[in-house]
Amino acid sequence: MMSSQLSVARLLWRAENVNGARINTAWTSDGVRSFTYRDLVSDVRDLAGALASIGVKRGSRIATMAWNTRQHLAAYFAVPALGAVLHTVNHRMPIEHMAYTINHVSDEVLIVDEDLLPSVEAMRGRIPTVRHLVVVGEPGAIDGFDQVIPYDQFVSGASTHGSFQEVDENTAASICFTSGTTGLPKGVVYSHRSIVLHAMAISTKGGVEIDAERAYLLATQMSHVNGWGVPYAAALQGARLVLPGPHPTPERFLDLIHGERPDTFVGSPTVAALMRDEHLRRNCGYDLSELKTMWLGGQVPPVALARWWAEQGARVVNGWGMTETSPMGTFSPGGSMQGRPLPLFELRVVDESGSPQHWDGQTVGELEVRSPWVAREYLDDPRTPDSFRDGWLRTGDVATVHPDAGLQIKDREKDLVKSGGEWISSVDLENALMLHPAVSEAAVIAIPDDTWQERPLAWLRLDADVTDEELRTFLATTLPRFWLPDRFVRVDEIPKTAMGKIDKADIRRQHREITGQPASTDQASTASDGRNHNVAVIPTRSGTTSGL
Amino acid sequence: MMSSQLSVARLLWRAENVNGARINTAWTSDGVRSFTYRDLVSDVRDLAGALASIGVKRGSRIATMAWNTRQHLAAYFAVPALGAVLHTVNHRMPIEHMAYTINHVSDEVLIVDEDLLPSVEAMRGRIPTVRHLVVVGEPGAIDGFDQVIPYDQFVSGASTHGSFQEVDENTAASICFTSGTTGLPKGVVYSHRSIVLHAMAISTKGGVEIDAERAYLLATQMSHVNGWGVPYAAALQGARLVLPGPHPTPERFLDLIHGERPDTFVGSPTVAALMRDEHLRRNCGYDLSELKTMWLGGQVPPVALARWWAEQGARVVNGWGMTETSPMGTFSPGGSMQGRPLPLFELRVVDESGSPQHWDGQTVGELEVRSPWVAREYLDDPRTPDSFRDGWLRTGDVATVHPDAGLQIKDREKDLVKSGGEWISSVDLENALMLHPAVSEAAVIAIPDDTWQERPLAWLRLDADVTDEELRTFLATTLPRFWLPDRFVRVDEIPKTAMGKIDKADIRRQHREITGQPASTDQASTASDGRNHNVAVIPTRSGTTSGL
Repeated sequence: MMSSQLSVARLLWRAENVNGARINTAWTSDGVRSFTYRDLVSDVRDLAGALASIGVKRGSRIATMAWNTRQHLAAYFAVPALGAVLHTVNHRMPIEHMAYTINHVSDEVLIVDEDLLPSVEAMRGRIPTVRHLVVVGEPGAIDGFDQVIPYDQFVSGASTHGSFQEVDENTAASICFTSGTTGLPKGVVYSHRSIVLHAMAISTKGGVEIDAERAYLLATQMSHVNGWGVPYAAALQGARLVLPGPHPTPERFLDLIHGERPDTFVGSPTVAALMRDEHLRRNCGYDLSELKTMWLGGQVPPVALARWWAEQGARVVNGWGMTETSPMGTFSPGGSMQGRPLPLFELRVVDESGSPQHWDGQTVGELEVRSPWVAREYLDDPRTPDSFRDGWLRTGDVATVHPDAGLQIKDREKDLVKSGGEWISSVDLENALMLHPAVSEAAVIAIPDDTWQERPLAWLRLDADVTDEELRTFLATTLPRFWLPDRFVRVDEIPKTAMGKIDKADIRRQHREITGQPASTDQASTASDGRNHNVAVIPTRSGTTSGL
Repeated sequence: MMSSQLSVARLLWRAENVNGARINTAWTSDGVRSFTYRDLVSDVRDLAGALASIGVKRGSRIATMAWNTRQHLAAYFAVPALGAVLHTVNHRMPIEHMAYTINHVSDEVLIVDEDLLPSVEAMRGRIPTVRHLVVVGEPGAIDGFDQVIPYDQFVSGASTHGSFQEVDENTAASICFTSGTTGLPKGVVYSHRSIVLHAMAISTKGGVEIDAERAYLLATQMSHVNGWGVPYAAALQGARLVLPGPHPTPERFLDLIHGERPDTFVGSPTVAALMRDEHLRRNCGYDLSELKTMWLGGQVPPVALARWWAEQGARVVNGWGMTETSPMGTFSPGGSMQGRPLPLFELRVVDESGSPQHWDGQTVGELEVRSPWVAREYLDDPRTPDSFRDGWLRTGDVATVHPDAGLQIKDREKDLVKSGGEWISSVDLENALMLHPAVSEAAVIAIPDDTWQERPLAWLRLDADVTDEELRTFLATTLPRFWLPDRFVRVDEIPKTAMGKIDKADIRRQHREITGQPASTDQASTASDGRNHNVAVIPTRSGTTSGL
């Protein structure tokens, strides 16, 4: 067979030649703008040429600090097509973390959206490898960099289109850092091969089923995990992308759904909830009739939210994945639990000795995964050995697998509550709490207990008044009595990480500050910390272990 | 990323663990039998163990002469899983060709269906590398082989399951020979990688869209081009296979559609036509209501046939491919022309100097293709250099590409008719002829002409009487006058190759014998001979060049 490599440039061949006339859309401050895949490939050649002209070559590292824009999309392809490596900086991280990742990667060029320049200014003098600053928009007066150039001038100044390089498919194409809740971020390197195979897998009917007839509103940020791989899969299949641009808001997403008619929304349950609220506040003034699918990841979407979107005609689908898994590992078109493994994605659940457990929907253990698009190490990071075993990634998730291969995440290893020698799943407990109409969000941590070793404590954001006893009575209809929290804490806001996930480390810290008592896992091993999940489940009635 | 290899054993992981409970069906002489994917994987382990016990190891070559059976399916997986190479002998080839391919590959073991033993007897003494003969069924009294053993005894005698081997994905997994219309067959080697990527590609919505909810009646023979890759894709996705067993007939296909309710038929237009005739003969006694798709390949399905199946509720889909392309290269879910390239499949049309031509739906040239599942050489064959150029396979097909990337095959290079300095497409002419209600089949060759250099001659199989002048009047409504054949030859049967394709070489030979005149391309280069196409087009009104 031909040695034909699986490369990002190969995706471009199809985008240009097969789907060249298909139209994408991007929100900009000047309004909504359309561009074809042929336009995109032209952008890519311009940017590749400009990058080549300043010395970018195979192995060079190029950083972006950018929203979901046409220019960011061009960088997604232009940088790997040169054989260089794209480092998408998560601009929501703390400044010191951003600087750490840029130094860790040794980025030479930084392509930055104008409104994110304050973060760059804050890093001035601390990211010495960055020689060139390319500003999408108006650079203003920024110094401390050898070269500062507006993007439009940069790409129009290139005398020739850049030549796409033939690369070995195992060459690095992009890098993303997990924004851990503790410790410094860890870098995950994606190869050309892993990007292409992931794009193929999510395009199958066993996967997300991306195809040319669909249009995706990409609310999930392209600064993280390659935008869930959607831009690459869309280019491969000719699917339409709707990019929401800088500083997206729920209103903008609704405007784009109303005006641009995407059939699929890709984003987080939090944003989906805010969109619901905004739609209701506007007396249902948005036309959602073309929207058929809400692909929600990153955290657990409450059942009530899934029901509401279903009533609008949009089915909630979900899956399981991590930064380390590109991210999609399992997918559930029906929205139940975490779904079944994608083609070419293998998983197992192991006990403490590493022995694989039966797939009976009962036995729990640590989830381990293996696939051509699962990382095998972190970039130059001493934490690698703790996370990889015999070619499998140790996810740090506690899970069971049902006989039909349906994955059910029970908890993060460090989030389990061990009460009287029995395990309580904080995820199941949160899901059960969120089924109560008064509960908008719930987060459960373990607190030390003299009698039971640990007991669950629930933080709640409420939509309406409800007493502790009403909550316990409600939970008791589906959960064992010993699971019921002794205490509930009502808060205005549940702490979130930079990625919008519930930040249990921060809850534990606040709990410690308020009470003077440690939360249980403050002392626990942090070996599995810092993972960044794209987990979404439709909560089922907790405690049941029925198949999918 | 993990170096996780793309291997046939990886497909088995999913068949066993994710789709283990899904059911397949095979026709046997004892009736229709069901088996799950878990049963299949157990079969595979048994067969792998038995093969290992007789010394089969990495690189060993194992031949099959077999129909579409459960045992053949097990061999599809067991042989590559051992790191050995499966050579599926096309048992419809002439004996001397079969013997040539077995010797060319140096097969050590031959797994043969009992009813095909006469062919093996005919090769006795001429295939010395074959030490072991494993007979599915009753061996009877056959000698000339070191070891003759019934399949059931062979697999039950294995004391242990065979261990699947980790293989480099570029390792050979299977071999198929093209049954050329001239010359000896040429061997095409499929790697583990090419098999897996082809399975992924045909599973996407840009492809055939194989998925777990569908059931495929596999009429196309597993002895050729890996059964169009359907068994591997089905195992990957958990789709149901319905295997028609030894000596399949149109009646059996209809019985299986009636009884087993597959939604997709995979086979040739010839068989689809015979099924139609049989259904009508039986007063439409078969229930075809579950059948939604007729995936027809190998030759051109007449428009009337496609219409008839559409009236039964089954859409005809088609594509383009060759033995050398695994076979799928393009696919058309709508059944118009040859469709658009699959993901990761690249094509171009070049002029005589090798320069790529515009995709304007007008300009014709030789079709060249490139993909991870396109062969880069023939197995130990001096004809390789003529067929491959700069990493592209020269298909020998004359084609045009439309602006939307829709491929339209105009002709085989050697089948073009050059009349008065202009080209006439024999394919377009055949398609136009088959639109006439009286014409059942048509084959056009070029014959020498003193005035025009060449003129088209049409061989026709007719369903009803029609005069030459009526035919010419009919053709003139859509074709230029100079295209109209001066002569029509009415025959009872159009010559076919071993694979059921129209055999123009034989038509030219008969023409020569009958008339004493050569057909034009008898003198032409045969560099592009011997290709075995899986081409299927729905004839469009000839001469038009509209997009898909």
